[in-house]
Amino acid sequence: MNNDSMFQPVLSRSKIYKGKYLDLEKMDVLLPDERSSVREIVSVRDAAAVLPVDNEGYAYLVRQHRPAIGRTIIEIPAGLIDEGETAEQSAARECEEETGYKPGNLTELLTYAHAEGYSTGMITLYLGTDLESTGSTNFDDSEFLELTKIPFRELVTKVKAREFIDSKTIISTLISEKLLDF
Amino acid sequence: MNNDSMFQPVLSRSKIYKGKYLDLEKMDVLLPDERSSVREIVSVRDAAAVLPVDNEGYAYLVRQHRPAIGRTIIEIPAGLIDEGETAEQSAARECEEETGYKPGNLTELLTYAHAEGYSTGMITLYLGTDLESTGSTNFDDSEFLELTKIPFRELVTKVKAREFIDSKTIISTLISEKLLDF
Repeated sequence: MNNDSMFQPVLSRSKIYKGKYLDLEKMDVLLPDERSSVREIVSVRDAAAVLPVDNEGYAYLVRQHRPAIGRTIIEIPAGLIDEGETAEQSAARECEEETGYKPGNLTELLTYAHAEGYSTGMITLYLGTDLESTGSTNFDDSEFLELTKIPFRELVTKVKAREFIDSKTIISTLISEKLLDF
Repeated sequence: MNNDSMFQPVLSRSKIYKGKYLDLEKMDVLLPDERSSVREIVSVRDAAAVLPVDNEGYAYLVRQHRPAIGRTIIEIPAGLIDEGETAEQSAARECEEETGYKPGNLTELLTYAHAEGYSTGMITLYLGTDLESTGSTNFDDSEFLELTKIPFRELVTKVKAREFIDSKTIISTLISEKLLDF
């Protein structure tokens, strides 16, 4: 039973592709008018991302190529949540692996659906502070990243000037603007 | 030639699935260390979305079920950009189709990649003002929406309280906070 008049129960689902990073399936859902309709759904693992800001007010970002959009972009450290790991543990791990700095403190900002129209993927954002240099970056096998530092206020200005194009960097910066004194 | 040291040229690509809403392909990219690596890429049409706010300071949102995340959520009007249409034309059309109000003025907020890790999809956000009631909603064939009005300041408060979970509603609200006097 579901009391939500907009609810569309899944009538059937069939796997189209099982891949390394994502799975694709086709679903038939029941519309409120009793007809059925096809939905193509991408299943991905949930992710965590952290905006690391040090005690001098510098944000630590990574530059990397994104073949899906054919562009090299600068973004906050992020990654998929491993099996058995919490979002917070994942954020701390990815931050250290990608920047060499471990956040002593993580403030959860929010969790959002990044492509609610066709993907299961949710991403949880954190603000990372009290950074401690461990010097131990550890990239995934096919990951090529370049660390870049920028004053947090400059990051805010650049996000507002539309210089960043990924949702996690945009959202974490806009929310953190009110949380940081820098 | 590409002077970007992080660039990963596509060596080969093969189509895995051609669907109604999305296509899936597998790419081999050349990594900076000369090895190759597989990427699974979802191709979707780009989208446009608009946060409509009337002269009394009410935001117009739509409630709809999203089978990909199994939830019914409230979000700003949005849709895919049609062939031959600009992002702005698409935003104006979707706003009228989904709410019955046509924006007399559209302010472009920004364009972002909603899932840069695996999807080609970009979405352009607008703030829509000077709303004119045309009373002519026109849903897509399998689209079921419910219009909901909320004072813009309440929307800002709710976004900050993490009550909205889609990136387009979160980003358009946070950016518009500075642009509106309500």
